[in-house]
Amino acid sequence: MQEKNVIYGKNAVTEALKGGRVKELFISNSASKSSFDQVLGDAKVKGIPVQFRNPFSMNRFAGTDSHQGIVAVIEAPKYSSLRAILDLAKSRNENPFIVVLDGIEDPQNLGSVIRTAECAGVHGIIIPEHHAVGLTGSVAKVASGAAEHVKVARVADLTDALEELKERGVKIIGADAEAKPVYYNIPMRESVAIVVGSEGSGIRHSVKERCDILVSIPLRGKINSLNGAVAAAVLMFEAVRQRTK
Amino acid sequence: MQEKNVIYGKNAVTEALKGGRVKELFISNSASKSSFDQVLGDAKVKGIPVQFRNPFSMNRFAGTDSHQGIVAVIEAPKYSSLRAILDLAKSRNENPFIVVLDGIEDPQNLGSVIRTAECAGVHGIIIPEHHAVGLTGSVAKVASGAAEHVKVARVADLTDALEELKERGVKIIGADAEAKPVYYNIPMRESVAIVVGSEGSGIRHSVKERCDILVSIPLRGKINSLNGAVAAAVLMFEAVRQRTK
Repeated sequence: MQEKNVIYGKNAVTEALKGGRVKELFISNSASKSSFDQVLGDAKVKGIPVQFRNPFSMNRFAGTDSHQGIVAVIEAPKYSSLRAILDLAKSRNENPFIVVLDGIEDPQNLGSVIRTAECAGVHGIIIPEHHAVGLTGSVAKVASGAAEHVKVARVADLTDALEELKERGVKIIGADAEAKPVYYNIPMRESVAIVVGSEGSGIRHSVKERCDILVSIPLRGKINSLNGAVAAAVLMFEAVRQRTK
Repeated sequence: MQEKNVIYGKNAVTEALKGGRVKELFISNSASKSSFDQVLGDAKVKGIPVQFRNPFSMNRFAGTDSHQGIVAVIEAPKYSSLRAILDLAKSRNENPFIVVLDGIEDPQNLGSVIRTAECAGVHGIIIPEHHAVGLTGSVAKVASGAAEHVKVARVADLTDALEELKERGVKIIGADAEAKPVYYNIPMRESVAIVVGSEGSGIRHSVKERCDILVSIPLRGKINSLNGAVAAAVLMFEAVRQRTK
């Protein structure tokens, strides 16, 4: 059982069940059964096998003790494509609204960005295949069910993907702490892709070069280390503000 | 050794050292010593005892394996007061900018709010004494050093604190998913306290009653479960935007 095919946590499993991706279900025999009534009903209807296990086995399955008493074996995560993301925007009659993550390695941060992106109505997230976390179980847990609803495209070369977006008229906005332009002065009603870099080193040079503009979030503290997922959230909701007004 | 008197992680320990709150330092004997050069130098100057321990002991001390090779025993966390928070705003010649957390129980979320608040130039955070997480080691780790720089007041009764803020002319803005007014239409240049509720149940009724206005963040997804710390970040940076423009 590989980590990437196991998810855990009530919201993550509930949404995977709805999406028809659960193959097998494990529930802790020390958990209150009534709290899983809906999940168990859903599993029964869909003919998904359910097993009750002791907390020790549950921890071993999940690879963590933060599974909330429920673990599911699921089909391998389905990645989407750049094309599908653009098609979704078109089908909604909206200007594309995309988030690009350049080398996020922390599952907590990817899960958080997916959860926020779902709330912000982002059409899709683009991540690189290498040197970055993918759709693992811990990412799905943090995303709290949102991973089932947000398209995530994993591309071999992020700079190629950005070139393709540019050709299709998408403005590439990179987040860079050193940039002079301030994010809220930049129009985001048009087609945009917001690029956020890794926790330690920001956006790579080659990716920066593909950005149409680099913007910063003005900070007012002494430490000023804004978490990457929080920075992405601030940028996403500024786009929502502009697109709603 | 109580959990609340132990912090871990490089940024958290470095900032606690600067703040003069470290009593004893433990460094993993499997870590590269050179990466702790600055910390060790600082500890020597300040006469703080340093011990090298094996990874197993380190995990036991920290109560987690995410200590990055460094654990510190510190003085009990110093909580601030509502008065000190208002005084800070006054000394900076700024309208008070306060965050109130009603029952955040997840250390990850409190740590994240502290880190973001530091970046946003918030004068202080108010948390309740009961049914909420305090300044624990895991909170300090997530806050990534920011816990040393943001005033956190822990009050016996949140409604009393809100009444006191109102008497001093602070507008109380509560985040409520059901509210009609949208957050970015609400003026936040004046003196404001932004109230965010717990992960599960939002702001309590008695706290809601003390709010001058309830606002929502417009969401556009299917699941729409915005993380509390992310919601707080979106509200904080809208206040920064208005105050900067």
